[in-house]
Amino acid sequence: MLSKSQISLLKSLQHKKFRKVHGLFVAEGYKSVVEFINSGYFVEEVYHTIPIAPKLLNLSAKINIKEISLNDMAKVSSLTTPPDVIALIRIPQAPVFDAQLLKNQYAVALDGVQDPGNMGTIIRTADWFGMKHIICSDDCVDVYNPKVVQATMGSLSRVQVYYTDLAKTLPLLQLPVYGALLNGQNIYTTTFAPAGLILMGNEGNGIRPEIQRLISTAVTIPGGGETESLNVSIATAIFCSEVFRQRF
Amino acid sequence: MLSKSQISLLKSLQHKKFRKVHGLFVAEGYKSVVEFINSGYFVEEVYHTIPIAPKLLNLSAKINIKEISLNDMAKVSSLTTPPDVIALIRIPQAPVFDAQLLKNQYAVALDGVQDPGNMGTIIRTADWFGMKHIICSDDCVDVYNPKVVQATMGSLSRVQVYYTDLAKTLPLLQLPVYGALLNGQNIYTTTFAPAGLILMGNEGNGIRPEIQRLISTAVTIPGGGETESLNVSIATAIFCSEVFRQRF
Repeated sequence: MLSKSQISLLKSLQHKKFRKVHGLFVAEGYKSVVEFINSGYFVEEVYHTIPIAPKLLNLSAKINIKEISLNDMAKVSSLTTPPDVIALIRIPQAPVFDAQLLKNQYAVALDGVQDPGNMGTIIRTADWFGMKHIICSDDCVDVYNPKVVQATMGSLSRVQVYYTDLAKTLPLLQLPVYGALLNGQNIYTTTFAPAGLILMGNEGNGIRPEIQRLISTAVTIPGGGETESLNVSIATAIFCSEVFRQRF
Repeated sequence: MLSKSQISLLKSLQHKKFRKVHGLFVAEGYKSVVEFINSGYFVEEVYHTIPIAPKLLNLSAKINIKEISLNDMAKVSSLTTPPDVIALIRIPQAPVFDAQLLKNQYAVALDGVQDPGNMGTIIRTADWFGMKHIICSDDCVDVYNPKVVQATMGSLSRVQVYYTDLAKTLPLLQLPVYGALLNGQNIYTTTFAPAGLILMGNEGNGIRPEIQRLISTAVTIPGGGETESLNVSIATAIFCSEVFRQRF
């Protein structure tokens, strides 16, 4: 049984404003919750509707676990189909960005990505390809948005996401910037350097002109069809895949 | 101004049952509506809240166009942010599947894909790479679901989607079936035939065992990270990209 104030707190965390006020976010679903418990995140409380699975129990020595009604779960979940388990998790301090961290590796940079599903899927894809860092412009969607957390399927617990002024930060990295533009060179004949940045833009407007100036190589995914563009999470994945293919 | 019954009709079309009863679906947003008007689809009516753009006007000689209030648009839209324009469109007769259609080309086959965003993104990606056909198991999400239509960004007007019993249909095609499995061969060292099928499975459970039996080459996307899987629309895109890269 959840109190009115607990329900109100959990629901409020669907909004960035209240996540900021409380320093908390919610992860929904068994897989996601387990990944956050296994990670360095501080899980304050776990709420579940079904008898807790052993895996969760083993890990939960120091975590408050509470059984709640299906009705309460439906109230606090952001999903159309409420999950069996949700966790209330402390938002860690924003990671300090250090240009040294990105030496000798690839990272993704995002300029104005707004859709939470896209952001979450990009984090999951970066994790798949072993990329540990994503650098976002300050106006990108918040990674603790419940739809982002959901779409990462736990990968958010392993990938560091930084919010920064890209115009100031990208030059500090001294890495080649491969920017996704419609009039760039063919990705399949582009030779990617051993380390670099994959730069993607906003869903509707692409990369802002002032950020485009920082691109060292403009790259395009050629296609044989009639549609004008690819979804940004799809384009990011094809870039990550091509970089990975060339390196391994 | 929309009548109560018009509002009720438009809202009901968010559900498959009522789309079937009425033989109608809704496309939302300017780009999507224009693509359907330009295609072979029969657009019954267009509703808009802002003065109609010239492009839409030029095309609309035979289409009923009606200005409605922001309030009515919010009522009938399936989106959190209601669009400026929506169209009421007739669902065409289910396309007749002909194995000959797929000769000498690539198509995507989907076994139990449930998420409308994934389905729509896969259609958009197939369109980008010039693939004209997607073969779905009967239990895949309906392509006229508003979230699917939205995610295709108009590509649904160009890609034919068939619903069928994959176990019966795939063998008729006499094409190599490249199935996405976690223990398959490395996609980057796989030589793809000039024509074939890219087979993808359900978000949680992958490809059903009885459909796995039809795979000629099991293929895996290698990754360097810790996450267990990629989103199905991402995996499909990486397959499409790799096939395209090898052929062009």
